[in-house]
Amino acid sequence: MTKLLPSDKALVPFVSVDHMMQLIHHIGVEETLRGLADYIEADFKRWELFDKTPRVASHSDKGVIELMPTSDGDVYGFKYVNGHPSNTKAGLQTVTAFGLLADVASGYPVLLSEMTMLTALRTAATSALVARVLAPKGSTVMAMIGNGAQSEFQSLAMKAIVGITEVRLYDIDPAATAKCAENLAGQGLKVTQCTTAEDAMLGAQIITTCTADKQYATILTDNMVGAGVHINAIGGDCPGKTELAPAILQRSDIFVEYPKQTRIEGEIQQMAPDHPATEFWEVLTAKAKGRTSDKQITLFDSVGFAIEDFSALRFVRDQIADTGFFHPLDLLADPDDPRDLFGMLQRAKA
Amino acid sequence: MTKLLPSDKALVPFVSVDHMMQLIHHIGVEETLRGLADYIEADFKRWELFDKTPRVASHSDKGVIELMPTSDGDVYGFKYVNGHPSNTKAGLQTVTAFGLLADVASGYPVLLSEMTMLTALRTAATSALVARVLAPKGSTVMAMIGNGAQSEFQSLAMKAIVGITEVRLYDIDPAATAKCAENLAGQGLKVTQCTTAEDAMLGAQIITTCTADKQYATILTDNMVGAGVHINAIGGDCPGKTELAPAILQRSDIFVEYPKQTRIEGEIQQMAPDHPATEFWEVLTAKAKGRTSDKQITLFDSVGFAIEDFSALRFVRDQIADTGFFHPLDLLADPDDPRDLFGMLQRAKA
Repeated sequence: MTKLLPSDKALVPFVSVDHMMQLIHHIGVEETLRGLADYIEADFKRWELFDKTPRVASHSDKGVIELMPTSDGDVYGFKYVNGHPSNTKAGLQTVTAFGLLADVASGYPVLLSEMTMLTALRTAATSALVARVLAPKGSTVMAMIGNGAQSEFQSLAMKAIVGITEVRLYDIDPAATAKCAENLAGQGLKVTQCTTAEDAMLGAQIITTCTADKQYATILTDNMVGAGVHINAIGGDCPGKTELAPAILQRSDIFVEYPKQTRIEGEIQQMAPDHPATEFWEVLTAKAKGRTSDKQITLFDSVGFAIEDFSALRFVRDQIADTGFFHPLDLLADPDDPRDLFGMLQRAKA
Repeated sequence: MTKLLPSDKALVPFVSVDHMMQLIHHIGVEETLRGLADYIEADFKRWELFDKTPRVASHSDKGVIELMPTSDGDVYGFKYVNGHPSNTKAGLQTVTAFGLLADVASGYPVLLSEMTMLTALRTAATSALVARVLAPKGSTVMAMIGNGAQSEFQSLAMKAIVGITEVRLYDIDPAATAKCAENLAGQGLKVTQCTTAEDAMLGAQIITTCTADKQYATILTDNMVGAGVHINAIGGDCPGKTELAPAILQRSDIFVEYPKQTRIEGEIQQMAPDHPATEFWEVLTAKAKGRTSDKQITLFDSVGFAIEDFSALRFVRDQIADTGFFHPLDLLADPDDPRDLFGMLQRAKA
C-alpha cells in the first residue's frame, strides 16, 4: 500500500509560541496561572511516584544548556532550556525553552511545546502555590525586587493564587520598573514604583527577588528583612548565582523543591551541605510543617524543577485537546510495516 | 512596536519525516550514506573535543526512553530515542527518534529534525565506515543476519562505502528476508535469500547481525565463525540484549564506540569489565591498531553513540540550507525587549 501522507501515528501536536499565547488568552492569564498551580500541586502531592534526576547540564563560558527529564510511570516529559545571561546584549532571550511529553508504554511523543512562555507562567504559578501555603495569612502586599521578564507573571500569580492587592516594584534599572508598571496597569493590582529595595519592602508580607546577575550578588542584606515575612527567592538558580546574604538564610526556615538540585543551584549553595531545608511536597502532604509562627521568616529557595515543567505540559496537553491551538507535526516515521522503513523511503520517491 | 509574526530569531528549521525522505532522494540514498560516513569520520577524528556522557535513560517494563546529548564546544546536540520491542505488535515502530542542534554561545536551537529515518542511515553509515577500516581488504560478500528495518540500509552502506557486491540474507522470519530482498532488487547488489544463518555466512568476509530480541540470544555460535572475518554486531544494544556467543568475543579483537556505554549495552556486557576493547576513534587517528592479520576476527560491538547523531544532524543542517527541505518552526519566544515577555503576550491579544 502506498502511503504519501503521514498517518495519525506519525503526527505529534506542536504548540508554537503563537498558539501558546492564543491559548493563554483564550483561558485568561490568571485562570491559566491558577490551572498551572493546580496541576503542579497535584503532582507535588504524588512526588514520590516520579523518577527524579538532577538536570543534565552542558556548561560553556557563555552559559548552560540543560535537559530536565522526569516520568510518573505513565507519562514521560523533558524540557530543553538554556541560560545565557549575555544574550540580552544581542537582543536574544536569556532563557528559551521547549518541552515534550511522551507515552511511557510506547515511547511515542504526544506533545511538543514551546516553553519559554510556559516556563515563565509555571515559575510564577509555583511561587504563588508555595506562598499560598507559607506566606502569612492575609498577605496583601508583595515587594518585587528585579523587574525583568518574570516580574509581571509573579505579580499576577500572587494576585490570582494568594490574593495580594499591591506590588511594590524595584529594579536597579528604572526603565525595567517602568516597563513592569506599565504592563501591570489595569490588571487589578495597586502598583507602586520604588527607587530603593528598602522602599519596595515597606509593608510587604511577601518579598520576591528575581534578578539576572550571574554572580554572587546581595540583593537583600540581613538588616533589610524583618520578622514574619515570606521570601520568594527565584533569581539564584545556578552555581555561582545567589541573591541573598547568608545571614538571611540563617534566620529563615528554608523550603526547597528538590534538595539534591537546590544545594547546587539555589541560595543554599552558600550554606553547609547539611543546612536544614524542607521539601515543599512534604508540607503539601502534611509530612512536614510549613509556617508555624507569625515571627518566622519562611524562604522558598526556588530553582525550578522538572516536575513543574511536567505539570505545565500536562496542563497544556489537556487544554489543547478541545481548543485546537496546535499544529500536527510530522515528527515520527510511521511505515505500514514497522520492519520496512526502507520501503517507506522508497515509496516516498514515487 | 507591535509584533504579530514571529521574528527570524523565533524560528527553528524543522525537518519532518517527509522532508527528510525528500532530502535523501534529492541527494541519493548511497550518496547520503557516504556523506554521513564522512561527517561521522570527521567527528570521530576530533573525538577528544566532545563532551561525552552516557545516555540519560528512563526505563519501564515496556521499554526505554533516552536522551543522548553531546557538544563539540561550538554546537550542542541531543537525540530523543525510544526502544520498545513490543511496539511492533501494535503497528508502531520499535524505535522512533528526533534530534536537535543548538548554538552553544547563545543556547538557541538551530535545527529540529526527525531522526527515525536519519538514525537508520547513520547507524548503517557508521557500520560501513568501521568495516571500511577493519574488514579484510577487498571484501565483497556480506552475510546479513536479521532482515528487519536496518537491513537494507546496512546493505547499501556496505556497498557504497566498502564496495561489497553481494548480500546473503537470513532471518528466522522468511517474510522479513523476502521483504529485504524485494527492497534491494535493482540496487546493484547480488541478493541471495538463505534459509539458515550458516548458509548466509558462506563466503562472507563481513557478517552483520541485527536482530530485535530483547533478551540474551545467540544468533551466532562459536563454530559458525571462521577466521579472518569482520563481525558487525549492531543488534546487541541494551542491557540484557546480546546476539553473540561469548566464545566468539574471546576469539575476536573488539572495537567499540565509547567503552563506558558499550560495557553496559553492547555484546561485551557478557565479558569481564576489563575485557580488552579498542575505541574506534583511536584506530582512525592511528593511536591504536586496527586489523593486523588475515586470520584475525575483528568485531565492531556497535551500540550507537551521541556523536554519530551529532554528525548526522550536522550533515542535515548543511544540506537543507540550500535545498529548502524544512519548515520554519515558531519554537522560541522572541520579544522585542528580552525583559518584556509579558508585553509580548499582551500584544498577542490584540
